[in-house]
Amino acid sequence: MNVLVVYAHPERRSLNGSLKDFTVRHLRDAGHTVQVSDLYAMHWKAALDADDFPHRDPGARLDASLDSRHAFETGRQSQDIAIEQDKLRRADAVILVFPLWWFSMPAILKGWVERVYAYGFGYGVGEHSDTRWGDRYGEGMLAGKRAMLVVTAGGWESHYGPRGINGPIDHILFPIQHGILYYPGYDVLPPFVVYRTGRIDAARYAAICKELGRRLDTLRDTAPIPFRRQNGGAYEIPALTLRPDVAPGQVGFAAHIESPPPSSVVPGEAVDPAVA
Amino acid sequence: MNVLVVYAHPERRSLNGSLKDFTVRHLRDAGHTVQVSDLYAMHWKAALDADDFPHRDPGARLDASLDSRHAFETGRQSQDIAIEQDKLRRADAVILVFPLWWFSMPAILKGWVERVYAYGFGYGVGEHSDTRWGDRYGEGMLAGKRAMLVVTAGGWESHYGPRGINGPIDHILFPIQHGILYYPGYDVLPPFVVYRTGRIDAARYAAICKELGRRLDTLRDTAPIPFRRQNGGAYEIPALTLRPDVAPGQVGFAAHIESPPPSSVVPGEAVDPAVA
Repeated sequence: MNVLVVYAHPERRSLNGSLKDFTVRHLRDAGHTVQVSDLYAMHWKAALDADDFPHRDPGARLDASLDSRHAFETGRQSQDIAIEQDKLRRADAVILVFPLWWFSMPAILKGWVERVYAYGFGYGVGEHSDTRWGDRYGEGMLAGKRAMLVVTAGGWESHYGPRGINGPIDHILFPIQHGILYYPGYDVLPPFVVYRTGRIDAARYAAICKELGRRLDTLRDTAPIPFRRQNGGAYEIPALTLRPDVAPGQVGFAAHIESPPPSSVVPGEAVDPAVA
Repeated sequence: MNVLVVYAHPERRSLNGSLKDFTVRHLRDAGHTVQVSDLYAMHWKAALDADDFPHRDPGARLDASLDSRHAFETGRQSQDIAIEQDKLRRADAVILVFPLWWFSMPAILKGWVERVYAYGFGYGVGEHSDTRWGDRYGEGMLAGKRAMLVVTAGGWESHYGPRGINGPIDHILFPIQHGILYYPGYDVLPPFVVYRTGRIDAARYAAICKELGRRLDTLRDTAPIPFRRQNGGAYEIPALTLRPDVAPGQVGFAAHIESPPPSSVVPGEAVDPAVA
C-alpha cells in the first residue's frame, strides 16, 4: 500500500516521535511505500488566511469556503496545500500521529486539516439539494481509502473510560474520526491510543510497539468503525437527523455507529450495560 | 466587569467578525471594560514549539510540560504568552468568538490555548498525589471567573441536534467547554451558537444581535453549566471515574453534568426521554 503518515509533535525524541519512527520503519519493512508529512519539520503554516489564496482580489471580503473553492477549481491554491492534497490522493491509507493536547489534535495538525481540506476536495463535493446533501460521511474524494489515529495521552486510561472524568476517548476522538476522516470518505480504523506517557519503561515500550506493529500488519484488513453513511438511508434529508426507526430513542455520538447484529454477540458472553 | 474577548476569524467583515464587534460595543456601552485579543490581527503564533521557551538548553530534548513549567515558574516565557496570561488574570470573564471549523475551534485559537495554558497556569496546579489530582475541573488559577463561547456554524441546527448527523452541539463543544474552560476553573455559561451562517438576512441578523445582547446583559447572572467538580466527591481518585452511586449506569459526556433536582421539573411538563 501507499501510506501517508502525518506527524505533529515538536520533539522527535518524544514517545510520540518514536512511535512515528516505528510506524514508518515497520511499514517499509513490510514492503509498503511510506511518505511522511512531518508538520513541525516542514514549518507547516497553521492558520488558514487570505495568503492561502494568492490570486484572490486582495480588497474583497475573504470567504474561506468560496475563496477555497475558486482556488481549488482553478488550480491556484497555495503550493503547500496542493502538495498535501496530492499526497492524500496517492495514499491508500493515512495515519495521523499526534499527542492529545487539550482533548484534541495539536494546532499545527488542525491547521493542516483546515487548509488541505479545500472546498471541492475535503468538503463541498457532490450534489447539494433538498434531497441530497453532498457526498460526505462515507462518500467523497477520499472514499475507498483507510485512516487511523496513533495518539499519545498523558492521563490514565481510566480517566478516558466510559465514566472517566475527561469523557470516553471514543467520544473525544469522534469529531476527528467521524467529522474529519469519515466526512470525506475514509474508512476509519479503531484508534491506537497510548495512555500515561510519563510512565513508559523499556518493557512497556516493547509491548506498545508489538501491539502497534500488529495494528500496522492488519491495516488492510481491520474492520473499520461502522459509522452510518449519510446517504445510506439512515438519515432524513435535508434535516440530517436519524430516522425515527434507526437507533430509536438513542442520542449522541454513539447513535451514528451501527450496532453489531445480535448474532455477533458471543453466546454466554456478558454484555455490560454500562458500555453497550 | 473586566471582559476579555478572544476572537479567531480571518475576516473582520464576516458574520463572526460582526458578532465580535457587536459584543465589544454592547459590553462597553453597558459600562464594562473590554479587551480584545484578535488572534489573526496579532499574527498569533499557533504552533507550540521550542521557541516558546527562549531560555531552555537548545540541545536538550523538548518536553512541552516540563519546559513550560520551568519557563512559567522562572518568568522566562515567551513574551506573547505572558501578556495573554496577564489578560486572563485581569479578566472577570472571557468570551471566545470563533467559527466552528471541522467541529472544533480554528487552529489559531487552539494554538492560543496550547501556548497560553502553561504548566502551573492552565494545568499542573495544586497537589498531585494518590488522593488528590490537582486543582482542576472546577478549581484552578481561573476559578471564580466566567467563560462563554460565541460560535458560528454553517450547518443547520438540526444537523447538530440530539440525533443530528454531526453529533449534538453540546457534545461537540464538550472538549472545549469542559476540557479547556472548566478545567482551569472557569464557570462556563451555555454557549451562544448561530447556525446556517450562509443564510442571514437583515431581520435574522437583528434577531441574533438582540439575543446575543440579552446573553451579554446577563453575563454576570446566567447559571453556568453544572459540570461536576473533580474534588467535590463525585469521582474516585486517582482513577477519576464517577463513583458508582453518581449517575448510575450513565456513560459519556452528559454524565459529568449534574442533573437538575427532581423539584426543578415543572409539574405536568413532559420530559422527553430522548433528550433527558
